[in-house]
Amino acid sequence: MAHPAPDNSKRATFLRRSASTLGLWALVSAAFASRLAWAYVGLVAILAIIATLEYFRMLKGAGVKCFPRFGMLLAAVYSGVLYWMLLGAPGAAGIGMVGADGSATTRVVNPDAGVPFWFDGAAFFLAIAGPFILQLRHPIRGLEPLHAVAANLLGFVYIAFLFNFAARVVFAVPGTGEVPGGMLLLWLLAVTKFTDMGAYITGSLIGRRKMIPHVSPGKTWEGFGGAIFFALLAGGGLYALCKDDMPNFATGLHVLGGWPQVIVLSIVMALLAVIGDLAESVVKRSLGAKDSGTMLPGIGGSLDLIDSLCFTAPALYFYLKWMTP
Amino acid sequence: MAHPAPDNSKRATFLRRSASTLGLWALVSAAFASRLAWAYVGLVAILAIIATLEYFRMLKGAGVKCFPRFGMLLAAVYSGVLYWMLLGAPGAAGIGMVGADGSATTRVVNPDAGVPFWFDGAAFFLAIAGPFILQLRHPIRGLEPLHAVAANLLGFVYIAFLFNFAARVVFAVPGTGEVPGGMLLLWLLAVTKFTDMGAYITGSLIGRRKMIPHVSPGKTWEGFGGAIFFALLAGGGLYALCKDDMPNFATGLHVLGGWPQVIVLSIVMALLAVIGDLAESVVKRSLGAKDSGTMLPGIGGSLDLIDSLCFTAPALYFYLKWMTP
Repeated sequence: MAHPAPDNSKRATFLRRSASTLGLWALVSAAFASRLAWAYVGLVAILAIIATLEYFRMLKGAGVKCFPRFGMLLAAVYSGVLYWMLLGAPGAAGIGMVGADGSATTRVVNPDAGVPFWFDGAAFFLAIAGPFILQLRHPIRGLEPLHAVAANLLGFVYIAFLFNFAARVVFAVPGTGEVPGGMLLLWLLAVTKFTDMGAYITGSLIGRRKMIPHVSPGKTWEGFGGAIFFALLAGGGLYALCKDDMPNFATGLHVLGGWPQVIVLSIVMALLAVIGDLAESVVKRSLGAKDSGTMLPGIGGSLDLIDSLCFTAPALYFYLKWMTP
Repeated sequence: MAHPAPDNSKRATFLRRSASTLGLWALVSAAFASRLAWAYVGLVAILAIIATLEYFRMLKGAGVKCFPRFGMLLAAVYSGVLYWMLLGAPGAAGIGMVGADGSATTRVVNPDAGVPFWFDGAAFFLAIAGPFILQLRHPIRGLEPLHAVAANLLGFVYIAFLFNFAARVVFAVPGTGEVPGGMLLLWLLAVTKFTDMGAYITGSLIGRRKMIPHVSPGKTWEGFGGAIFFALLAGGGLYALCKDDMPNFATGLHVLGGWPQVIVLSIVMALLAVIGDLAESVVKRSLGAKDSGTMLPGIGGSLDLIDSLCFTAPALYFYLKWMTP
């Protein structure tokens, strides 16, 4: 077990990271407070596209053959059409919130109506067929063609597909309550980011026992415990405060309604957030990159920011969909 | 341009391949004539699982790090649950055919009702999260972890996801006519396999100009022409004979109803069949394998058999879904 890094650099990183995090929360809050669906959805779109760009840049930096222009085009078109469909769904405007005049048109009455299965299916089909077709023009040099096609597919599924669930969660549930989709999203962001923050703060302060040094040397078991604790704090706290705005959590599974459900879900989300963070570390280590980019001081790139959400957002979405047939 | 291979070996392969093809058509016809959905769907399942096994064997043979046990498990569970959902959908039994007694229960009344989007979405999520989690226990050796995760994902999407559309096509359309799903499937199989056969027969007999020697040395432009011709023959012929059983083709797009639609669709399917065949050649060449397996004399393995269907079946399914909202 290695000793922790010197206190000085740790403290500087801590401060830079905190500043970036606060700035981002301000941005998210602004997009959210605007009650404009396009503002929030646009933020997700920008992060997804920048993260895809970072992924292909890292591949290029490591000398991995791939088809970045096709990958970028697919991610951008997929995101664009998805948002167009989501925002075009009946009552989707306003992130499922009831307008000041209480008009029914601002409610989500028909969740996901605008996004048929064939849309995602066709995107996956293109994510495979496209690189295969492009590869036909190049020579077959050992494993290179297989890896090129697979790396392009991974980029699409990992970033464009998984992260966009951060937008889809808002439109996942029928709008019977006041702000069901909006609150669920807030809950997701809070639990995910409190997990990240909890791990970081606890790990920085009292972290000693390394968790998985060959993947992420900074991670400690103390930080992991803090992550679970902070996730429960955020998940439970938000539920206690806004229970009435989260009818989907109260009327969930028969065995797990209300509080037991919130506690189990908070822990599952925390585990997925940690795994999502480690998964991105695997990608970065494998490609020899320290950060995915340099956009955010103390955090790194866009992919560094969204890595946990890539795993928590889809899981929450599938859970909600599976729970409310 | 290289000379064609010696006539003798060409003729032997031709005969072996023809025998295997006839045997397979007999099997498909038997499964189809049985009018039992599980017989047909079971055939698709077996082929999908064997093809996945072949894929991971080829990866292992080429020394590519991957997670074959997880890959096999995911493909098997995904296929199993998918079929259970498809067969459990209202009126799915009998592949959408009306029973001898004309009972409505054997009609597909609610297509795809049993397969919600979260099911496929969650499968994709697991196809990424699973390999990442398994990878955490292994050391990070250069690009190996990224390629391992990506190769596992490719195996799932390319085979288990794409080929299973050969089963989903049957349940894709509402059962207003007599045998809509059944006829569409027959049409798909006929066009795809006539493309393969047309390319092979024409190429074997008069093929001279190599099409893409670095990927598939046997392919010729004459064979490509024959592929399009045979696809039009099969697609147009079947439509002419069974027009009344294919209401979906007659009431298609406003601009492309009936014959123009069948002709365009036959050509598109032929192109996709050829690309699907070439894509599998890229995989095999890249992994240094001649055939994906040895199950079928003259054809090779299961993946060699289904490679074109992996591209034509999903495309037809998405087209049908997009056409009939």
